[in-house]
Amino acid sequence: MSGGVEWKVNMPDGTSEKLERENIGMVSRVCMGLKGMVERFVLKIWRFLEKAWSIGVSEPKKVVHCLKVGLALTIVSLFYFMRPLYQGVGGNAMWAVMTVVVVFEYPVGAMLSKCINRIIGTFFAGSLAMGVHWIASQSGEQFEPIILGVSVFLLASVATFTRFIPTIKARFDYGAMIFILTFSLVSVSGYRIDELFEMAHTRFSTVAIGTSICILISMLFYPVWAGTELHHLVNRNMEKLADSLDGCVSEYFNDNGDVKKSDDDPNKKLQGYICVLNSKATEESLANFARWEPTHGNFNFGHPWKQYPKIGAAMRNCACCVESLNSCINSEIQVPEYLKKNFSDACMRLTSHCSKVLKELAVTMKTMTKSPTTDLSVGEMNFSAQELQNALKSLPNPLLFPPLSENETKGEATTKHAAVTLIDIVPLATAISLLIEIATRIEKIADEVDELATLAEFDSVSDEKSQQNQSKTDGIDDVTMKALQKV
Amino acid sequence: MSGGVEWKVNMPDGTSEKLERENIGMVSRVCMGLKGMVERFVLKIWRFLEKAWSIGVSEPKKVVHCLKVGLALTIVSLFYFMRPLYQGVGGNAMWAVMTVVVVFEYPVGAMLSKCINRIIGTFFAGSLAMGVHWIASQSGEQFEPIILGVSVFLLASVATFTRFIPTIKARFDYGAMIFILTFSLVSVSGYRIDELFEMAHTRFSTVAIGTSICILISMLFYPVWAGTELHHLVNRNMEKLADSLDGCVSEYFNDNGDVKKSDDDPNKKLQGYICVLNSKATEESLANFARWEPTHGNFNFGHPWKQYPKIGAAMRNCACCVESLNSCINSEIQVPEYLKKNFSDACMRLTSHCSKVLKELAVTMKTMTKSPTTDLSVGEMNFSAQELQNALKSLPNPLLFPPLSENETKGEATTKHAAVTLIDIVPLATAISLLIEIATRIEKIADEVDELATLAEFDSVSDEKSQQNQSKTDGIDDVTMKALQKV
Repeated sequence: MSGGVEWKVNMPDGTSEKLERENIGMVSRVCMGLKGMVERFVLKIWRFLEKAWSIGVSEPKKVVHCLKVGLALTIVSLFYFMRPLYQGVGGNAMWAVMTVVVVFEYPVGAMLSKCINRIIGTFFAGSLAMGVHWIASQSGEQFEPIILGVSVFLLASVATFTRFIPTIKARFDYGAMIFILTFSLVSVSGYRIDELFEMAHTRFSTVAIGTSICILISMLFYPVWAGTELHHLVNRNMEKLADSLDGCVSEYFNDNGDVKKSDDDPNKKLQGYICVLNSKATEESLANFARWEPTHGNFNFGHPWKQYPKIGAAMRNCACCVESLNSCINSEIQVPEYLKKNFSDACMRLTSHCSKVLKELAVTMKTMTKSPTTDLSVGEMNFSAQELQNALKSLPNPLLFPPLSENETKGEATTKHAAVTLIDIVPLATAISLLIEIATRIEKIADEVDELATLAEFDSVSDEKSQQNQSKTDGIDDVTMKALQKV
Repeated sequence: MSGGVEWKVNMPDGTSEKLERENIGMVSRVCMGLKGMVERFVLKIWRFLEKAWSIGVSEPKKVVHCLKVGLALTIVSLFYFMRPLYQGVGGNAMWAVMTVVVVFEYPVGAMLSKCINRIIGTFFAGSLAMGVHWIASQSGEQFEPIILGVSVFLLASVATFTRFIPTIKARFDYGAMIFILTFSLVSVSGYRIDELFEMAHTRFSTVAIGTSICILISMLFYPVWAGTELHHLVNRNMEKLADSLDGCVSEYFNDNGDVKKSDDDPNKKLQGYICVLNSKATEESLANFARWEPTHGNFNFGHPWKQYPKIGAAMRNCACCVESLNSCINSEIQVPEYLKKNFSDACMRLTSHCSKVLKELAVTMKTMTKSPTTDLSVGEMNFSAQELQNALKSLPNPLLFPPLSENETKGEATTKHAAVTLIDIVPLATAISLLIEIATRIEKIADEVDELATLAEFDSVSDEKSQQNQSKTDGIDDVTMKALQKV
């Protein structure tokens, strides 16, 4: 049986395996296929784990949150394991587990919003359901199911509809759902069980246990406040926008790459405006959660969280312009160097003023102290925008022709264009006009931040004091401080 | 007691009321305050109702959805009211109610995603929990709670962490939550109750009843498919972008407002690009839901829904440019009329080609038929972009000075600027270069739509046949058809 031709299978890793004749064909192919599948599966799992690991490393807060959820659930389970408590809470203990799983959200605000929604929804629905139940029970056995059915139909429909109304959806979506759930459960189960009050009492105590464990664990160990996250997000986006604008313009005017060398990943910095454009949804949901949060850190209850999405909108508006600027800078049409040089200084000055204003606004937000120099910086920015416009205005038309001396020395650059035509200056003109527009939009951001400072009653300190304050207490990075003190 | 000075209170509506002496002061002020409060409250309620009414009128589908939720809940309640069913399903019937409330979402895809997530999560968690429960029960009474507690802690933490991974979050967020819930409930309650299989069986039947009622009602009566909604949303946004671009450019070049008169609300049309910029989150969630949906209408299961957010991103990219164009057009600096006129034709031609391409793409998507003219239109668009560039190139520099004849007839326009300086042409140059950029970006949209057509295997028909098809079966609005046939 084994005397005959020998078969070898060459494995992908270079080795080869001897095979018996009957194993060849089908079996080997199935083996290979299976091996490939397993390899692909293992690779997929491996990539997934790598991704998970990178998330965990970059945001350890999230890992802490997961441990907190595990802890809360384990504690709640104790209520089951311990006999005395089991007697008290009864089969309803599952409600405590359910409460923890459903309510324990990442930011504290999201959790509080769910808890409060749950309480309000349950309370209203419970009392309404008991009322309806009483009316139904008074009206005879025949009408009882009809009254209950109609009331469930009507209230469920209306409550579902309110979930489509934006103001309700933003704040009370979960509450409306709990309302429908509780109303249906209570009014329907009331038809069977007469111990509604008894049930409500045990249900309430279990939910209270679950909720309080959640709130305690979430707020005591490394709390993640939606408000603080929002504040940092807007702050970070402001810095990203400044870096992005800076990088974009310096790349255009300094082709030798002086600026690039200082950054480790210049492309990433340049693309910062994309983060700004994409953070609308996050900002809005964080702002919604933040208003449920109690006083924490520097933020009081009633902090004007609504203002943050407005600042975000102004920044997105500006980022949109930076995006257009970026694409215009990467345009194929090359502006003659001498023309570029002519405006290089004015443009760079305006850009540095723009990013200075943005960075000052970021510092204002970070330190929550009104900087007395911001108005001045905005003024300087507007002044350099005006200067740039004046430079354009005063530019004599003949300059559009290359100067003779340069024409002779750098002959190769201008031989093709005897006279500079409109097409050559289009990208430059576009860049300049977008820059001026960006300055206008940054002023709007400044207005919104100013509005925030007024609403939130930021401290307003004198020049020296503020600088002392900033460098002492709030740990601003040195680069920003230097940029601030330089001018 | 009443003989004395008479007091009158002048009401805000002009009438005046006589008051007894003892009623004055506190009481009247309290009354007035209360009245004001009630009035404000009524006004608020009234506004809320008005808003709700307008939502209902503009989107009757949502009202239908609410009635469907009411109907489903009422039917589920029947399982309680009817005695025979009550015997079978037992106290677990509340699970049916809960399932309906939690699972019944607006688009069918969202509901199916929740149902499937629930099933997968429950199944995995249930089997895992039973395994852990068996191991724990074998290891003696002392170790049992420890093993169960540790397993709950570990699995809850890990499952919570997976919810932070974007790919899991997009598709299996709800499943992970149900996994945690079921695992905790089963492993913990297993410590008490030994009839786990019995419980699982009744639980399964109630949830199955709830789920099937939801799916039946949701899919039989006026179903709202996430896929169709997404398709229409992208389609509508494309038309809005075209209108917005059209309106923007014609406003700039035709100050006499020929175009404006034809529209009922020109400002609304102009602002269409804002809708495009703001629909990222909606697009992405709809695309996530759509992939759970079975074959419906023209969309098969496995339709390339992932491609839609890509088209959306390309459109947002373009809308960003339209935004910049809009602000540049509203710039304070006025371009000399004769210079504007010089480019008016070329710009208008490019714009009409741009919006023609967009509208053709919209028709391609609406009819799901590859239009044979799209490539031609894109070619024409690129050609007119090239033409515009050529017009800039060939423009002799002296034209930057106003022509003499016009200078004499319209003396007032040019007396101030003896020679046109760079500043005067900046807005025009910006508008032109943004228009060219917009054309480039529209080509990218066309590429993405083409990719969709390839992936989804759109029909490809001959010229006449497609036109017949379009006008016969798919009910395109006449305006679009005319716009298509005109060129």
